[in-house]
Amino acid sequence: MNREQYYMNLAVEMARKTKGQTEPNPAVAAVVVKDNQIVGTGIHVRAGEPHAEVHALRMAGEHAKGAEIYVTLEPCSHHGRTPPCADAIVEAGIKRAIVASFDPNPKVAGQGTEKMKRGGVEVITDVCREEADAINHSFFHYISKQKPYVRLKSAMSLDGKIATSTGESQWITGEEARKDGHWYRHRSGAILVGINTVLTDDPMLTARLEEGGNHPVRVVLDNHLRMPKDAKLLKDTTAPVWIVVGNTVTDEQIEVFRSKSHVEILRQQQETVDIDTLLKELGERKIASLLVEGGGTVADSFVRSRNVDEVITYIAPKLIGGRKALTPVAGTGIEHLHDAMSFSIVEHTQVGNDIKIVSRKEGE
Amino acid sequence: MNREQYYMNLAVEMARKTKGQTEPNPAVAAVVVKDNQIVGTGIHVRAGEPHAEVHALRMAGEHAKGAEIYVTLEPCSHHGRTPPCADAIVEAGIKRAIVASFDPNPKVAGQGTEKMKRGGVEVITDVCREEADAINHSFFHYISKQKPYVRLKSAMSLDGKIATSTGESQWITGEEARKDGHWYRHRSGAILVGINTVLTDDPMLTARLEEGGNHPVRVVLDNHLRMPKDAKLLKDTTAPVWIVVGNTVTDEQIEVFRSKSHVEILRQQQETVDIDTLLKELGERKIASLLVEGGGTVADSFVRSRNVDEVITYIAPKLIGGRKALTPVAGTGIEHLHDAMSFSIVEHTQVGNDIKIVSRKEGE
Repeated sequence: MNREQYYMNLAVEMARKTKGQTEPNPAVAAVVVKDNQIVGTGIHVRAGEPHAEVHALRMAGEHAKGAEIYVTLEPCSHHGRTPPCADAIVEAGIKRAIVASFDPNPKVAGQGTEKMKRGGVEVITDVCREEADAINHSFFHYISKQKPYVRLKSAMSLDGKIATSTGESQWITGEEARKDGHWYRHRSGAILVGINTVLTDDPMLTARLEEGGNHPVRVVLDNHLRMPKDAKLLKDTTAPVWIVVGNTVTDEQIEVFRSKSHVEILRQQQETVDIDTLLKELGERKIASLLVEGGGTVADSFVRSRNVDEVITYIAPKLIGGRKALTPVAGTGIEHLHDAMSFSIVEHTQVGNDIKIVSRKEGE
Repeated sequence: MNREQYYMNLAVEMARKTKGQTEPNPAVAAVVVKDNQIVGTGIHVRAGEPHAEVHALRMAGEHAKGAEIYVTLEPCSHHGRTPPCADAIVEAGIKRAIVASFDPNPKVAGQGTEKMKRGGVEVITDVCREEADAINHSFFHYISKQKPYVRLKSAMSLDGKIATSTGESQWITGEEARKDGHWYRHRSGAILVGINTVLTDDPMLTARLEEGGNHPVRVVLDNHLRMPKDAKLLKDTTAPVWIVVGNTVTDEQIEVFRSKSHVEILRQQQETVDIDTLLKELGERKIASLLVEGGGTVADSFVRSRNVDEVITYIAPKLIGGRKALTPVAGTGIEHLHDAMSFSIVEHTQVGNDIKIVSRKEGE
C-alpha cells in the first residue's frame, strides 16, 4: 500500500459507514493531510447539509494551506444546495487533491478536477477507486438510469418456502437475519410491498434498529385501493406512505385518504400498476434505492419486468415441504429457463444460524 | 503442532482423500515412522481388501521393528475378512501406536488398544481426533444406528424453484455444481429417487466423473411398480437397481423383472413404502450412506418421517417465479413452523456461479 492508498483507505472506511444516511446523495468522506499529519476529517451527514470536503476544510482551518485533501468522490463543481467544493478547495490553498471515484454522469465527471487544476491544485485520480465505487453502487445506478436501484429481499427455508402450507411464516429465519434485514430498510430510500402483505400482516415497514435509523418511504402496490383505513401504516406517521393504484380507482375513493398528510395516492394510467412507470416516477421523486419485501406476486411482477438489480436472500437451515407452501417469487413466473433473470453472487455469509446470499444483476 | 500431530496430519489427509471408496467400511490410513523417517504408508483401498495398517507395515518391512505407527482409526481386534490389525502391529515389533479416532460401537472401541498394550506396544490416543472423526461421520452414524446416513440433495434457484412453471429443469445450476453433485453419488452406498423421476427424466443415476468412480446402488420408490421395462436404469448394468414396492404388487408383476440379474424388487408389507422400514432394510443390506435426489414428493416423505441427516443445497443465482413452479420438497409438508426439520449450517461455498450449502441435523 502506498502513501496515497494509506490515507484514502481511511476516507473510504469513513464513507462506507455512512452508507444509506445520505439518500438520495452519495456517501462521501474527505481527509486533509499536511506533513503526514491528519488535520481535517469530514463526511457528508445527510442530503441538504454541507459536503464532506467543507467539513474537513473547516476542521483543518489554517492547516489546509499547502495541504493534501483525500476525497472518496470527485468534488462538485456546480452550485447546488451548497457552493462548489472544487472552489472551496482552491480557496483554502490545498496543494494536492487525491480523488477515488467519479460521478457516472459524463456531464459532471471531470469538471471538479478541471476546476481544481485551473486553480493551481495538483490532482491525482483513481486511488482506491474500486473500493470507493462499491460504496455508492446503488447511487451510481440511480444517477445513470434516473430510477431507483431495486433490491429484492426474501427469507426462506432450505427448500424454498417462505411459509408452511397452512400459512405460518413467523419466523422462518432467526433474529440476527431479521435485524440484518432492518439495515436494508435503514439504507433504502423506499420500501415496497403489495396490498396482500398489508391485509395479511398489517406491517409498519419502518427500520427497527437499536438506537434508531432512517425510515424509508413506504410504497404499497394496491391496484384497486383496498387499503384498510385503520392499517398501522396509516396511523403511523414516521415516514410517508405512497399508495400506487390503477385507473379504475375514483377520485371519491382517493378523497378518503386526503386527511392524512403523510399519505399520498399515485394513480397510474392503466388498471394494474406498471413497474417501469412506477420506477420512473420514484426516480423523479428522488428515491435512489428501493427495497422490495414481498409478497410473491409483487416480486413476480418485478422479475417478469426484469426490474431486480440485487437479490438479498436469507436461508434458514430448515425443511418445511408442502406443494402448496408459498415461495419468494410466485405469480405467473417465467416459462423458459433461458429467460430466467440471471445474477452473480457477490456475497455469502452466515448470519446467526442462517445463510445470507447477495446476488447482483449481471452487468450491474 | 506437536510431533504426533505432524505425522497424524498426513494420515488424516490420506484417509480423507479415500472417502466413499471404502463403503460400507470407514476410510482409514496408516503411516509408519522410525527415527523421524516415514518408512511405511497405507490406506484401506476398498471393502474386502487389506486394512491400511497391513499395507503400511508391509511397506515398512524390517523397518517396522521399534517404529511408531500412526492410524486414523483404532486398529481392529477381531477376525473379519482379514486377521486383526492389532495382532499384526504387535508381531511387526511396533514400539508405539498413535490413534486418532474410535469406532462408535462401545463393544468394539478400546479393544484394539487393549490388545496392543498387552502385546507391549505403547498407545497414545485422541491425536487429531476431531479431524479424523469428521472423515467417517456417515460411517459412524451407520454403525451406531444400523441404518444409512441420509443426504438430501437438491438444486434450486434463489426463489426456491427446481423447474419453471412449464416444467423445464435442465439446468438450473451450472456444470461445476452438477459435477460436485456426482461426487456425492461416488461417495454414497446408494442413491434414491421416486418413480416419477424415472418416468419424467429416465435417468441413469450413475456417478459420472472424469476418470471413473463408484456407482451407488440405485433405489427407486415405486409403490405400484410402474417402472417401464425399457427404462435406462434397467438396460444399464453398471450398478444394482432395487425397486421398492408396496403389498398390492403381485408376484406376476415382479416375475417380469426376474430376467435382469442386476434388478431386485423389495416388497413391503403395506401399500405405500414406509421410509423407516426401508432404511432398516438398507442398513441390513450394508448401505452406509444414502443420497436422496428427488423428486419433491419423495423428499417430503423423508422430511415428514424426519429421516434427513444432511442437506446438500445448490443455489443458482436466478429468479424464475411462478406459483405453480416446483420446489425441492413438495408433497404434504409440515403444517407448523415449530415442527419443521432443523439443521445447522456446516459449509457454504461458491461452486462455479452457484452457492452450495451443507447443513446437518442438529445433534448429528
